[in-house]
Amino acid sequence: MTPDDEGRIRASFEAQSMMQTLGARLTGLGQGTAQIEAPILPGSRQQQGYAHAGLTFAIGDSAAGYAALTVMPPDCEVLTAEMKINLLTPAAGPVLVARGRVIKPGRRLVVVQAEVHARPDDGAERQVALLTGTMIPVETG
Amino acid sequence: MTPDDEGRIRASFEAQSMMQTLGARLTGLGQGTAQIEAPILPGSRQQQGYAHAGLTFAIGDSAAGYAALTVMPPDCEVLTAEMKINLLTPAAGPVLVARGRVIKPGRRLVVVQAEVHARPDDGAERQVALLTGTMIPVETG
Amino acid sequence: MTPDDEGRIRASFEAQSMMQTLGARLTGLGQGTAQIEAPILPGSRQQQGYAHAGLTFAIGDSAAGYAALTVMPPDCEVLTAEMKINLLTPAAGPVLVARGRVIKPGRRLVVVQAEVHARPDDGAERQVALLTGTMIPVETG
Amino acid sequence: MTPDDEGRIRASFEAQSMMQTLGARLTGLGQGTAQIEAPILPGSRQQQGYAHAGLTFAIGDSAAGYAALTVMPPDCEVLTAEMKINLLTPAAGPVLVARGRVIKPGRRLVVVQAEVHARPDDGAERQVALLTGTMIPVETG
Repeated sequence: MTPDDEGRIRASFEAQSMMQTLGARLTGLGQGTAQIEAPILPGSRQQQGYAHAGLTFAIGDSAAGYAALTVMPPDCEVLTAEMKINLLTPAAGPVLVARGRVIKPGRRLVVVQAEVHARPDDGAERQVALLTGTMIPVETG
Repeated sequence: MTPDDEGRIRASFEAQSMMQTLGARLTGLGQGTAQIEAPILPGSRQQQGYAHAGLTFAIGDSAAGYAALTVMPPDCEVLTAEMKINLLTPAAGPVLVARGRVIKPGRRLVVVQAEVHARPDDGAERQVALLTGTMIPVETG
Repeated sequence: MTPDDEGRIRASFEAQSMMQTLGARLTGLGQGTAQIEAPILPGSRQQQGYAHAGLTFAIGDSAAGYAALTVMPPDCEVLTAEMKINLLTPAAGPVLVARGRVIKPGRRLVVVQAEVHARPDDGAERQVALLTGTMIPVETG
Repeated sequence: MTPDDEGRIRASFEAQSMMQTLGARLTGLGQGTAQIEAPILPGSRQQQGYAHAGLTFAIGDSAAGYAALTVMPPDCEVLTAEMKINLLTPAAGPVLVARGRVIKPGRRLVVVQAEVHARPDDGAERQVALLTGTMIPVETG
């Protein structure tokens, strides 16, 4: 990844208003990998006070998508074709960390996976979700 | 569904702060069905201005979950075990409508489906996503 | 669908040796739809005597794939990119019927769904599985 | 895993007639893991001569299921609630190897994953599929 590639991907992330609404930050980016962190804000919860599945999905999907974008040509944006999430345990905070990675790059389809962990104030991270999906490039030229 | 059941389900929806953040409203509830509507708020978008997949997922998942809750015992809440979303086309607004329904009720697992449509100011609704998943009851007693 | 299209699709089905191993037959074909039937042969079972998930998947996936092929250009074959199956109840026979249909056609991706029902000797069909997936065209030159 | 547990699991595998039809063998079993191998028999192919998705699914699903069974109580059998497969590349043989593992054990649900690789006569294994799913215990009392 060149600095240009990284700049382009960070600009795409910044342009996602949903990420800002959720307080999410892009905290890691490598060849075929991306990491996103988000607090479980008061406005991101389900009825029992845990992280809403929509939050867990949104950052897992985005981490997987940006991981895919690192292996796509420079004139592309990325769209999710399909994504499945298995929720392993209720997600207590205060922070969630999503790590996406490319399983299989391809010209037409990029198969991706992401794990989402809850990071407590003390103690070890705990995996709360596993996502697998398919990303497609869309030319922006 | 008794009025008590409906009240209980509406209270659960109101307790989901994420639904309020997204501007989502529960606009329909029947035996095995639920409907949720949400505007594509300025803060709910992806990098090209369409609805973020996280929004489409969140209301589709919730519509499916509340559809499942209508067929669960009264002393239960509902959790998503797994959910898959196929995104059919970019979701332009201004409003998204998610309709969830129970495919197969069960004591341990409830299989559900949801369709999400974009509703333009004029013209016909257009399906933007299809979700299928598994809901589980959790006793709140 | 022209008779040529139908002949081409039937020839593709006949070329799948797995379908013959499972005793499966293509019993319906329309614009965006396909139906496959298979007996639950003695060699197609899981450890409790029900249909093996592999059989249910194989005919559901194929019905979805051939439904997709009906909306693809004539010089194409079809490949499954991804497929999810929800198994609703153990599948007792003697016959399974899979009905596939196109949810969303597209040049690059075709989103499909299939339902698999068990058909008893007497009584009504019972749905045993729901599949949703993504098919892609591959040029056969 | 006690020798009793392993015997019970191997007996369950042997009772799956589909595994015999496909020529599949259980070649590995550990705490939370299972490995199944199968040749791509002449009767297990799709229309272009590659392994049928039904074969890839069947051994991936079974490897994941038996991985789950190793962490379930002794008086249980295992059923697939749902399984998603992403097919990464056409599967050429002569042999496929499926490796399943438990992602998250649980009393009611066990989340599992499996990878399927093609093993050529010479050269390195190549991953052809990724599966993620949910297994449930059923009492056999």
